[in-house]
Amino acid sequence: MKVMLVILDGMGDRPSGALRGGTPLEAANTPNMDYLAENGINGIMDPIAPGIRAGSDTAHLSLLGYNPYEVYTGRGPFEAAGENIELKPGDIAFRCNFSTVDETMNVIDRRAGRIRESTHKLAEVLNGMEIEGTRIIFKESVEHRAVLVLRGEGLSPRITDADPHRLGPINEVRALEKGAEKTAHIVNTFVRKSYEVLKKHPVNIERRKKGLPPANIVLPRGAGMVPHLKSIGEKYGITAGAIAGVSIVKGVCRLVGMEILEVEGAKGSAESDFAAKVRAGIKYLDSGDMVLINIKAPDLFGHDGDPAGKRAIIEKIDEAMKPLKEILDDAIVAITADHSTPCNVMDHSGDPVPLLIAGSGVRTDSVSDFGERSAPKGGLCRVRGNDLLNILLQLAGLSEKFGA
Amino acid sequence: MKVMLVILDGMGDRPSGALRGGTPLEAANTPNMDYLAENGINGIMDPIAPGIRAGSDTAHLSLLGYNPYEVYTGRGPFEAAGENIELKPGDIAFRCNFSTVDETMNVIDRRAGRIRESTHKLAEVLNGMEIEGTRIIFKESVEHRAVLVLRGEGLSPRITDADPHRLGPINEVRALEKGAEKTAHIVNTFVRKSYEVLKKHPVNIERRKKGLPPANIVLPRGAGMVPHLKSIGEKYGITAGAIAGVSIVKGVCRLVGMEILEVEGAKGSAESDFAAKVRAGIKYLDSGDMVLINIKAPDLFGHDGDPAGKRAIIEKIDEAMKPLKEILDDAIVAITADHSTPCNVMDHSGDPVPLLIAGSGVRTDSVSDFGERSAPKGGLCRVRGNDLLNILLQLAGLSEKFGA
Repeated sequence: MKVMLVILDGMGDRPSGALRGGTPLEAANTPNMDYLAENGINGIMDPIAPGIRAGSDTAHLSLLGYNPYEVYTGRGPFEAAGENIELKPGDIAFRCNFSTVDETMNVIDRRAGRIRESTHKLAEVLNGMEIEGTRIIFKESVEHRAVLVLRGEGLSPRITDADPHRLGPINEVRALEKGAEKTAHIVNTFVRKSYEVLKKHPVNIERRKKGLPPANIVLPRGAGMVPHLKSIGEKYGITAGAIAGVSIVKGVCRLVGMEILEVEGAKGSAESDFAAKVRAGIKYLDSGDMVLINIKAPDLFGHDGDPAGKRAIIEKIDEAMKPLKEILDDAIVAITADHSTPCNVMDHSGDPVPLLIAGSGVRTDSVSDFGERSAPKGGLCRVRGNDLLNILLQLAGLSEKFGA
Repeated sequence: MKVMLVILDGMGDRPSGALRGGTPLEAANTPNMDYLAENGINGIMDPIAPGIRAGSDTAHLSLLGYNPYEVYTGRGPFEAAGENIELKPGDIAFRCNFSTVDETMNVIDRRAGRIRESTHKLAEVLNGMEIEGTRIIFKESVEHRAVLVLRGEGLSPRITDADPHRLGPINEVRALEKGAEKTAHIVNTFVRKSYEVLKKHPVNIERRKKGLPPANIVLPRGAGMVPHLKSIGEKYGITAGAIAGVSIVKGVCRLVGMEILEVEGAKGSAESDFAAKVRAGIKYLDSGDMVLINIKAPDLFGHDGDPAGKRAIIEKIDEAMKPLKEILDDAIVAITADHSTPCNVMDHSGDPVPLLIAGSGVRTDSVSDFGERSAPKGGLCRVRGNDLLNILLQLAGLSEKFGA
């Protein structure tokens, strides 16, 4: 059998007064997920460990069988991998903003007027530089965002951000431990060079003419070292693909050796074509052993504190889940979340997430609907995200026996 | 929000014939804790791990986020810290009894007639000694009890007790591993010196006159090394206080850097003023982030094998919990135990303990009363003590996100 793992990003929530005391998932009409819950086994899952507020990156690592405490030093590498940059273990990667500074290096717009166009032209002139023997890889991402990778000897991710995260003077990057001074110096040099090169770039001359803030500096943040990772294929002996709209999830999946499946209409937003993602996932299972589908939208409504919107998008997602009912003879289907993003917290919380697993042969329980408060009554009780893949692979008959 | 953690020491129990098959908690009328259970989320908790019979010291360490297998080598340091002795990592600490021996060093009363008075005068003459370069810190505790601390180079806690734990010859302390011989020798020397000094002490001359057994020797036991501990403030970024009647719990809380709040009427016994402790805990939350309240009484009835008494004291404790219903908008309230002390075992068992968590935003479940057998039907399922603080702090919005 195959494994279909659907991760509804940030779906877990808390009871909401606006939804008569229900969570968005509980309040939503979700006949397809309820069918899977009723015909499957249910429980709650701590993506990393009870009470730990997981990020999407650390949670996906954990759900894919990696220990984020061992392999995660920052968001940068996963963001960069999500932008198709070929990374090597030991590379230091950063998220960056194109920002606007005045002549005294005061940030006056952290997002350079949310510049959308021609950032690839700006990136071009920065990419490929070398600073004191360290190679600079730089690539634009969506809107005002970009990624920076440093490749060379003696680099460390233990440095502060250049981005001040507010208006005012840019941060001088500092080493957070002995041995990180070189990296801090290189990043400071890169930031200065980005200003020198970008302030007179034709794209910015054009922006000034139009009265738009120039994207005249690059401010890196979130340094992380690309970890040595045994691929998911080596670890579990499977071929695995991933479908995700957002680059950080793509990046995690790419770095663990999953094939990234590009799906038309997968946007990482509420407008994403959920049904197309599910169709593409099912199709991938013709050849692959396992597919992960990440649907970002619930997380966005959680961050926005919009329970009614979250309920509505969950109902829309549920419609897209309908074809999963037809593959239960051939695949173990799991639906869960990477973390909770309660609308009343407007950020990730450490609450466990509901988990359902359905498919031929799976033990069932008396739970008949998919929800935060029905799930813990189910047969899975409470599990950890790090155990999920082992649970799914053994149900699919895809794992090895340990012992005799 | 704040965190109020109430630990009813040894409250967990097993079904009792004397209580028509109920546990003391189940048989007790506990409207206030039932209210919190009904309006909160419930589960069972293994203080250390399933089946492990936890002590109060190791359990409290675990519940506060420390791994007792890494930091606990014996009870001594926690007892000493509870007696306000300033300890340093590496110190070796012991619990001691003032005992009575005859001239052949046979113990004829392990508790020196449960001596209550003037032990500080006896302690005075022993405190501050030096034995072969090792400094002796010695302080009386309640009744016949005292604490001993050795401070110096090359000391080890891996030695046997001087206390024979029964009548008869005192134990010659032995090293349990290579390198502990020096410590064993120092303790043996201290025990001999205590006899030489105490046998002729005026307090004992007086006792002999009155026909009371003299407190003419000190017998140390429970050697432990004071661990290097990152404080709870450093670990979790919170300010935390503790209210406890018994010194061992105070000691654990002090050693992890919690502020020890002295409350009039907190006695660590069935006569303790439970309501005063709860009031003081709530008051502390005006400034502090978290408070731990330990109520010792249920454990005492468990050790005595008195289910009816345990039920009665739980009812009295429940009355003191009433104000907790009023703070649920401002605090996450948790009530649990550090371990089970079943009346039919008359000692700590490895049974899990019930846990309820209530407060604004907390997911609820269908459990409507607080008890050993209703709790596992709740939404928390089964958790470990070591995860408790992470669970509570995230619910209170007091923890950091791991990842992006």
